[in-house]
Amino acid sequence: MPPASLSLSVIRDIPLVRTGDDLAAIILQAMSSCGHEFENNDIIAIAQKIVSKAQGRIVNLAEVTPSKEAVRLAREINKDPRQIELVLTESKSVIACKPGVIIVEHHTGVILANAGIDHSNVSADSEGEYVSLLPEDSNRSAGDIKQAIESRCGKKIGVLITDSIGRPWRLGTTGIALGSAGILPLRDLRGNRDMFGHELMVSETADADSLASAACLLMGEADNATPVVLIRGFECIDTQLDSRQLLRPEKEDLFR
Amino acid sequence: MPPASLSLSVIRDIPLVRTGDDLAAIILQAMSSCGHEFENNDIIAIAQKIVSKAQGRIVNLAEVTPSKEAVRLAREINKDPRQIELVLTESKSVIACKPGVIIVEHHTGVILANAGIDHSNVSADSEGEYVSLLPEDSNRSAGDIKQAIESRCGKKIGVLITDSIGRPWRLGTTGIALGSAGILPLRDLRGNRDMFGHELMVSETADADSLASAACLLMGEADNATPVVLIRGFECIDTQLDSRQLLRPEKEDLFR
Repeated sequence: MPPASLSLSVIRDIPLVRTGDDLAAIILQAMSSCGHEFENNDIIAIAQKIVSKAQGRIVNLAEVTPSKEAVRLAREINKDPRQIELVLTESKSVIACKPGVIIVEHHTGVILANAGIDHSNVSADSEGEYVSLLPEDSNRSAGDIKQAIESRCGKKIGVLITDSIGRPWRLGTTGIALGSAGILPLRDLRGNRDMFGHELMVSETADADSLASAACLLMGEADNATPVVLIRGFECIDTQLDSRQLLRPEKEDLFR
Repeated sequence: MPPASLSLSVIRDIPLVRTGDDLAAIILQAMSSCGHEFENNDIIAIAQKIVSKAQGRIVNLAEVTPSKEAVRLAREINKDPRQIELVLTESKSVIACKPGVIIVEHHTGVILANAGIDHSNVSADSEGEYVSLLPEDSNRSAGDIKQAIESRCGKKIGVLITDSIGRPWRLGTTGIALGSAGILPLRDLRGNRDMFGHELMVSETADADSLASAACLLMGEADNATPVVLIRGFECIDTQLDSRQLLRPEKEDLFR
């Protein structure tokens, strides 16, 4: 059954995250200073950026030496060759590109622009140009954070690591679940019937991505500094399934 | 500023919708019987299906005569030629197809599978095979319903007409805003700065689609019969902009 109601709220007072920080501890602290207590089925949505920062997935572009291939491609699409070097290193393949845009399959299987590399909200350091890479393995991170929070609060929760990405035919970004734990990412409706007993045409709903989209709406992109959102109303479960379930297999793909 | 909190709840007791029904009156009645009173900035998300039904956008496949082109294409992709006839009639162009799948540009500019034609939750009539077409103009419908509700409740609200659609590289459907009124569909972040004063890479967020995704999560697809969701926490505005703002112009499109 889909939820009858859903609430989302920003967890305030998340400090600037630095390499090595314990995100579970930071979130527990911020929840408590917000006056929230964890309940069963709480879902914590975390912006990818702070997971990357905690993992030290930050690169100073001044220290990147682009390959010939990166230099060639960067010239073709009018991008910084050092950034293209990182994009290529982080990816399995280039799906499409044109001046200013490069869409790749990240090594985790997610298809997105720039391999998720971003320079927003990365560093105040004026000595270098820092960018963030995606977390090494967002599903593992989600699982680790889930376990650490659960062990300290004694409740069963879910964790989403979110990113905001563009889409081929629609403008503006929406959220996706880059990683998930304790949530069924894809709701399988096969075998379900409509109100009149007919079999459904839609077979699966991408619930983890829909939750991520809603959470990203609250996170903002600018200087809001609200990278953690509490979601209530969606049922968490014990599952080994994670956001990899949402990747369309290449053989079913009409657009690569 | 993005919202600090957001709540969504299903409006229960929406009756079966029939051609000619007044959706604004139905929603006002259901809100009241749910114990809700309209407040300023309430957003009503309405599943496309009931808008189509109210408009009589229901077709009996037995009454459709497929063209030669529809017969040819239907054979190629293993679909019902009568349904392909409707898909072609509703569309500007075919974007991609393979056995079992046809993705088109609907005449409203939205790119989606089957031109949004669906046989779920359409009719209990065992005499025919009925399918629903998308509403004629979902933005106009959203505006009409908004105005009708506002004139009766005296509050400023927003209206979304939602649909659930698939995506090229990810499995499962998520919601989109097929139509909107009283909501800024696309939040423009250009000129905004991150926490450290750097210009943002992401320039726009598709807020209306994110709201629709969250709402569709509550609507379900099966026999739940919950096609209307109340969203609170997002700021409505007076705007002539509608969900057409979310359509990526063809010249910026890498995938058609």
